[in-house]
Amino acid sequence: MMNLIYTGKTKDVYELNDGNYLLKFKDDVTGENGVFDPGANTVGLTIEGAGRAGLKLTKMFFEKLKEDDIPTHYVDANIEEATMTVIPAAVFGKGLEVICRYRAVGSFLRRYGMYAEEGQPLDAFVEITIKDDERQDPPITEDALSMLGILTKDEYSVVVDLTKKVAGVVKEALCTKGIELYDIKFEFGRNNKTGEIILIDEISGGNMRAFKEGKYIEPLLLEKLMLEE
Amino acid sequence: MMNLIYTGKTKDVYELNDGNYLLKFKDDVTGENGVFDPGANTVGLTIEGAGRAGLKLTKMFFEKLKEDDIPTHYVDANIEEATMTVIPAAVFGKGLEVICRYRAVGSFLRRYGMYAEEGQPLDAFVEITIKDDERQDPPITEDALSMLGILTKDEYSVVVDLTKKVAGVVKEALCTKGIELYDIKFEFGRNNKTGEIILIDEISGGNMRAFKEGKYIEPLLLEKLMLEE
Repeated sequence: MMNLIYTGKTKDVYELNDGNYLLKFKDDVTGENGVFDPGANTVGLTIEGAGRAGLKLTKMFFEKLKEDDIPTHYVDANIEEATMTVIPAAVFGKGLEVICRYRAVGSFLRRYGMYAEEGQPLDAFVEITIKDDERQDPPITEDALSMLGILTKDEYSVVVDLTKKVAGVVKEALCTKGIELYDIKFEFGRNNKTGEIILIDEISGGNMRAFKEGKYIEPLLLEKLMLEE
Repeated sequence: MMNLIYTGKTKDVYELNDGNYLLKFKDDVTGENGVFDPGANTVGLTIEGAGRAGLKLTKMFFEKLKEDDIPTHYVDANIEEATMTVIPAAVFGKGLEVICRYRAVGSFLRRYGMYAEEGQPLDAFVEITIKDDERQDPPITEDALSMLGILTKDEYSVVVDLTKKVAGVVKEALCTKGIELYDIKFEFGRNNKTGEIILIDEISGGNMRAFKEGKYIEPLLLEKLMLEE
């Protein structure tokens, strides 16, 4: 017995009897006009097996983070069912995206192209955007987050630190396969029981931009390359 | 003898023989489709006497700031000629706008409308945008300013402190005339000789949104109300 409590663009969320949540990964990926774009706000296409592949990579990373004592919402995963059991957590405000950038591409370049060249290295630069499709996910400062009651200054520091740590783990894992991480986005929340700030959502190809020998690697190919022995 | 060194939307800049700069205030104001908008990037209309009125208010405020020992580029002003003599200063990067907000309106509301209501009080909230017409003056964080070499973290603190002080002076002056300051934008630069961070540009009706008895006050009317005995 479980209740559907939220239908997302790429996942549905159910409440389990024991109080945990179950995430059901869908085969829908974000993009526009049939082209995948991790920064897009619309479902662009459906790819058979995309949900399971994303879950496999997510499981691999969340288990790695557990070994490193980095707090996440992960409990366990069932690849056949394309489901992941997680600890319930409340997002900050109505949801934030936390981006870690190693190269200047995407929305960073669209905003700061006057001062940055395409592909220029960035030193694990962290920025936060509001999840707000209607307003094109605007960036927001530490001061504004605090003033609007979304995130305290102490919480902001914790989120930035965790982001750099988790991005570092992903970057290193990709590196061992000869793949370079350009940028990656995360979501964080407060553990409903303990209040601790934990990584939530997923870590799949759809959350990052990765390149191999100068060529962009699509999420499904990235997941294949990362998961093969 | 003086050389024209820059032609701006609302001012021209000349270099004087003694090394100081001369700002010549024009009668052009920013806006769109003939309607004044202090946040706009285009010259919307020309109003006879707008330059002189803006200079008069600027002179009044810069002289007030001098009394309060707040560093600015102001040397003196000639109302008849619509000119102001200033100390040369270099802008940060290719120019930043520093905004101080007491009420949620304009671009703040367009970005953060999910979390703020129109006209909601804000406690001297400071944010910085890049002067970049092509990219619609994007907001930028302390971290990004530092990473892109535009403003160090120490300079950021100085700019935010100065902004709150100057905005407070303007807010109080307006208040004595029964006018409420909603928001105001400033520019800062580094004194070419000493490196000190100083307020540059102007403080006129075109830099702020002000309301009296709930009604928006246009720049020319604001200047008239502020300057009458």
